Amino acid sequence: MQTVRKTALKMQPVGLKDVKIDDPFWNPWQKLVKEAIIPYQWDALNDRIEGAEPSSTIKNFEIAAGKSEGKHYGMVFQDSDLYKWMETVAFSLSTEQDETWEQTVDEVIDLLENAQEEDGYLNTYFSVNHPDKKWTNLKNDHELYCAGHLIEAATAYYEATGKDKVIQLVSRLVDHIISVLGSEEGKKPGYPGHPEIELALMKLYRLTEDEKYINLCKFFIEERGRRNPEHYYDIELAERGGPNRSDERTYEYYQAHEPVREQKTAEGHSVRATYLYSGMADLAAELNDEELLEACRTLWENTVNKRMYVTGGIGSSAHEERFTVDYDLPNDRAYTETCAAIALIMWAHRMVQIDADRKYTDIMERALYNGALSGISLDGKGYFYVNPLEVWPHTANCRHDMKTVKPTRQQWFGCACCPPNIARLLASLGQYIYSSNESEIYVHLYVGGETEVDVNGQSVRLKQETNYPWEGNINFTVSSDAPTDYTVALRIPAWCRNAAITVNGQAVDYSEVNGYAKIQREWQDGDQINLTLEMPVEIIRSHPQVRENAGKVALQRGPVVYCLEQADNGENLQDITLSENAGFSSKFEAELLNGVTVITGKGSQTDASKVEDELYTTRSFDRVAKEIKAIPYYAWSNRGEGEMTVWVREE
Amino acid sequence: MQTVRKTALKMQPVGLKDVKIDDPFWNPWQKLVKEAIIPYQWDALNDRIEGAEPSSTIKNFEIAAGKSEGKHYGMVFQDSDLYKWMETVAFSLSTEQDETWEQTVDEVIDLLENAQEEDGYLNTYFSVNHPDKKWTNLKNDHELYCAGHLIEAATAYYEATGKDKVIQLVSRLVDHIISVLGSEEGKKPGYPGHPEIELALMKLYRLTEDEKYINLCKFFIEERGRRNPEHYYDIELAERGGPNRSDERTYEYYQAHEPVREQKTAEGHSVRATYLYSGMADLAAELNDEELLEACRTLWENTVNKRMYVTGGIGSSAHEERFTVDYDLPNDRAYTETCAAIALIMWAHRMVQIDADRKYTDIMERALYNGALSGISLDGKGYFYVNPLEVWPHTANCRHDMKTVKPTRQQWFGCACCPPNIARLLASLGQYIYSSNESEIYVHLYVGGETEVDVNGQSVRLKQETNYPWEGNINFTVSSDAPTDYTVALRIPAWCRNAAITVNGQAVDYSEVNGYAKIQREWQDGDQINLTLEMPVEIIRSHPQVRENAGKVALQRGPVVYCLEQADNGENLQDITLSENAGFSSKFEAELLNGVTVITGKGSQTDASKVEDELYTTRSFDRVAKEIKAIPYYAWSNRGEGEMTVWVREE
Repeated sequence: MQTVRKTALKMQPVGLKDVKIDDPFWNPWQKLVKEAIIPYQWDALNDRIEGAEPSSTIKNFEIAAGKSEGKHYGMVFQDSDLYKWMETVAFSLSTEQDETWEQTVDEVIDLLENAQEEDGYLNTYFSVNHPDKKWTNLKNDHELYCAGHLIEAATAYYEATGKDKVIQLVSRLVDHIISVLGSEEGKKPGYPGHPEIELALMKLYRLTEDEKYINLCKFFIEERGRRNPEHYYDIELAERGGPNRSDERTYEYYQAHEPVREQKTAEGHSVRATYLYSGMADLAAELNDEELLEACRTLWENTVNKRMYVTGGIGSSAHEERFTVDYDLPNDRAYTETCAAIALIMWAHRMVQIDADRKYTDIMERALYNGALSGISLDGKGYFYVNPLEVWPHTANCRHDMKTVKPTRQQWFGCACCPPNIARLLASLGQYIYSSNESEIYVHLYVGGETEVDVNGQSVRLKQETNYPWEGNINFTVSSDAPTDYTVALRIPAWCRNAAITVNGQAVDYSEVNGYAKIQREWQDGDQINLTLEMPVEIIRSHPQVRENAGKVALQRGPVVYCLEQADNGENLQDITLSENAGFSSKFEAELLNGVTVITGKGSQTDASKVEDELYTTRSFDRVAKEIKAIPYYAWSNRGEGEMTVWVREE
Repeated sequence: MQTVRKTALKMQPVGLKDVKIDDPFWNPWQKLVKEAIIPYQWDALNDRIEGAEPSSTIKNFEIAAGKSEGKHYGMVFQDSDLYKWMETVAFSLSTEQDETWEQTVDEVIDLLENAQEEDGYLNTYFSVNHPDKKWTNLKNDHELYCAGHLIEAATAYYEATGKDKVIQLVSRLVDHIISVLGSEEGKKPGYPGHPEIELALMKLYRLTEDEKYINLCKFFIEERGRRNPEHYYDIELAERGGPNRSDERTYEYYQAHEPVREQKTAEGHSVRATYLYSGMADLAAELNDEELLEACRTLWENTVNKRMYVTGGIGSSAHEERFTVDYDLPNDRAYTETCAAIALIMWAHRMVQIDADRKYTDIMERALYNGALSGISLDGKGYFYVNPLEVWPHTANCRHDMKTVKPTRQQWFGCACCPPNIARLLASLGQYIYSSNESEIYVHLYVGGETEVDVNGQSVRLKQETNYPWEGNINFTVSSDAPTDYTVALRIPAWCRNAAITVNGQAVDYSEVNGYAKIQREWQDGDQINLTLEMPVEIIRSHPQVRENAGKVALQRGPVVYCLEQADNGENLQDITLSENAGFSSKFEAELLNGVTVITGKGSQTDASKVEDELYTTRSFDRVAKEIKAIPYYAWSNRGEGEMTVWVREE
């Protein structure tokens, strides 16, 4: 008999199948995923993009399956690119059927089945190139990472199609992993150098309710960073016969410097960290493990209050793609990997289900509209791996310490983790919008469309209409077959100073709990809720200890962070200053960058006509008025190479 | 019969033997060189400094001389550390006899003679470790660089002592070089990857008047960067059988990307560049080669007007220790190697002899009092290789892109080029102060002491008394056996807005030519000249294209650039702002940092009591008054680890 666990979840996300997006801002992105990104990335996985670095991803599986010859090419984690793409297609099929792509994925699953070994093992790098080295380098070799992405793809595909062939495939893989890794006698007590499988196992557990999956997840999380008395990475290193280059990294890089419950600061590789924290949150929630939850909350506060860019980007060091120290947030050498912003969204989404606090969803929204969306070009064909907050092409192109900064988006990458990651985020956007529990519907994000949710035994539909993020007016229509008593909880973003809510045109009483406006009543079919979020142009300042932003301001309107681009403001953006009395105004420009609201205002710049050739001078420079124009940060670099800055000097 | 060349020199430096320094600012440094640095560095060369990286320099020579066993240890250019030390001792002996050190150097010369091979070859790395690889990698292997430093040491030692054993030794070495390298059939048409021997050969030529030395120098300079049609570095690379890691560097790194006459911008490794430019200036002056001179002037303007820090530091990239692009001058990742500031002084010193323009001596002074002097601690036992203009220890200690920045001076370095270089600069300071020609005495630097110069057939003594750089008042007393007509040319620094000159208390007429106040008269024995240079605290701004200094000011008083240190101003220096009405005042503090003039003034900083934990906020922060205290940049990091910044935000 299975024990029913009391979880720590205050709500559950409304799944993709129950959410339909119909929104002026997001529709084009949704269309892009289906019509451009999925086909483009499929071509990339099949090495059909001219001029891009070859992927060899499909080819690797064909070789492993015995259908092609040669050696594995690419990264040790190349398989995961396919899995993330599969997950993207699965998400897309959840919201809209597409026989062609479904058939393609079915064929891919057949290919995977052929590539899978007898004992359940599946990883083309090792099967093809190094069959003798399986599970010998958990720290660096990404076998569990790839397995995690396959599990995620499998659960998404099953949820989209009901087809369980891929679930059987991953259950054979996980059974194999369980036979190799674990605390039992004769198994290796190892855990992944790149966390990912933890959160994937929690998805598989929630789907199947088979405890072996949560138990494996728990093993990986609890074992991490322990010394018994030896550190597992030292044990396997000795068994491998000594270090190679990757072994120069410290355990902080892998979040394995101490047991996770004792970790207080976000350390190391930022994607690994936030995938881990997401898995920790899932496990803690499911087990109602308050100590582990508290560890997640502590890590959260450190991440977002000390180590996050205003765009929601994280990871301020290109070297080791990592967090550094509190308040070290250089803009021109920000690493802020697209994947890290996405992982922050994933983590935030898990935390809000537990704590029902807008502080998580505010960050989720910040990363979504800024640091994640900047990872992809408006045409879906260019990607940023690194999302800096300042770019100076002349300097970035010559300085070695800026070598990861690309002034324009790239077609694809040798290490192509980010493009499929942004694709799966966009394809799965629906699941981030709503949550519910027995008596409440939470609205986390303002995205037009509809959802259907069961509350208090009644199926309730909620329709959302808005021109967000350009306008702060959101209309909801509720409908149900019978009047029903429940709560609609609307997030009032912390960036909003004045919010107003009416129901059927009348002001209503509501309580605000942790930033959610909770309107409880017996809702009638056709009731209208109007939420108005004031969104003037806001001048943002950083904590005074953020050295790189001292004396600088950023512009934000609603959830959107702005930047100045050379295309609108000329060169030498560092010379421009803004004042609090800049008279900022905003205006929607339908023709610009697929339609964006721009900010204009008065600033000043040095009177160039009076500047002489001196490098240093005791003169002060005359300044002249300068009309500035700011565009949303996510939309930068869609008009050729040029300077860009988010933070602008304050007069 | 030797042709008498007409040189382009407008004056000649007054040599060390004819200059005595007696100056409150410089006496302690001179004493430090003799009493601390020379012995300390001799211990370092002999591996007797506890806790410092071993040098093995003397040991290498002993091995090469057959007096010790083992392999060469250290850099391929390790020999040069000894040569620079020898040069330092020689300079020191020029101004003051010291039998012990003279005997030590004589013993070193005996050792060198034993280490020198039959054919004149002398380089311990190759003699000991790779005798088969001599002259096969001129691009990277520093054989000519080491030879250059030996030649410099030899000429200095000969000038100090009149002993020519070491001159004979180097002439055998140079004869060997001439037998191997050159444009003649059967020789390799190669030239050094690290320039240095060019300026050394010019010293040897000027000492011996033997044209073979200037001809070899000319060959090295003219051949550099040529394609005939192949680039020499490609030829030798092919002969070596292909590239290794060092061969990833571009030809710009070596200033070999094009013939030197065509080079317009300062490129590549900044020490190599400025050593080369110094040699080019020497050669051009000696040959009166206007085209080559013009190349030097063009490179000078680019260097000092586009690519130099306010401290006189050059080389803004740690990667390849190089120049980057115009106006790219990050303060926290400045490389600004001590050797590069010294090389800039050497180059400036050569240029002013040719063009008689203070623009060179102003830079010489800037680098001397700031970016060069910062390379050594006040006790002479700590050295900076890298001289950043901002240091944030927490960040510098963790960020990989700041890994060359050390928050405190080091005892010694594996690559120990800088410590002996700063020592030889200090020991040879006397030669930078005065120049003369038939009828003029130029005073470039204001350093107390005396010189004796022949002008218009008369021996003239000039005595200088001053408390410079802390005070701008300089008294000169001239004396000679008979009244003599000549010109005293005093540099009026460009930083000085008001200068006044009196002779015997009376205002005098003088012409100002290229920044030199020329007072021509029949001077009487005992005539007094008083020069008063106003030196208020000046607020310095950068060209608006220097991105890192936008909105910031630096403080300078006289030639001294100031900085804020945490020891005086607390943490978070980036939060401090200054205004033009800061009411700056200066005051000499005899007990502080061996006696420095400090600057105090009013600034402001964020009211820390009102700062909350938010990383980003729409609030503006209240600011409170802050009394700031600035110390001379060269004296920073003598009171433990802490923050430091030269550039401070302007209110």
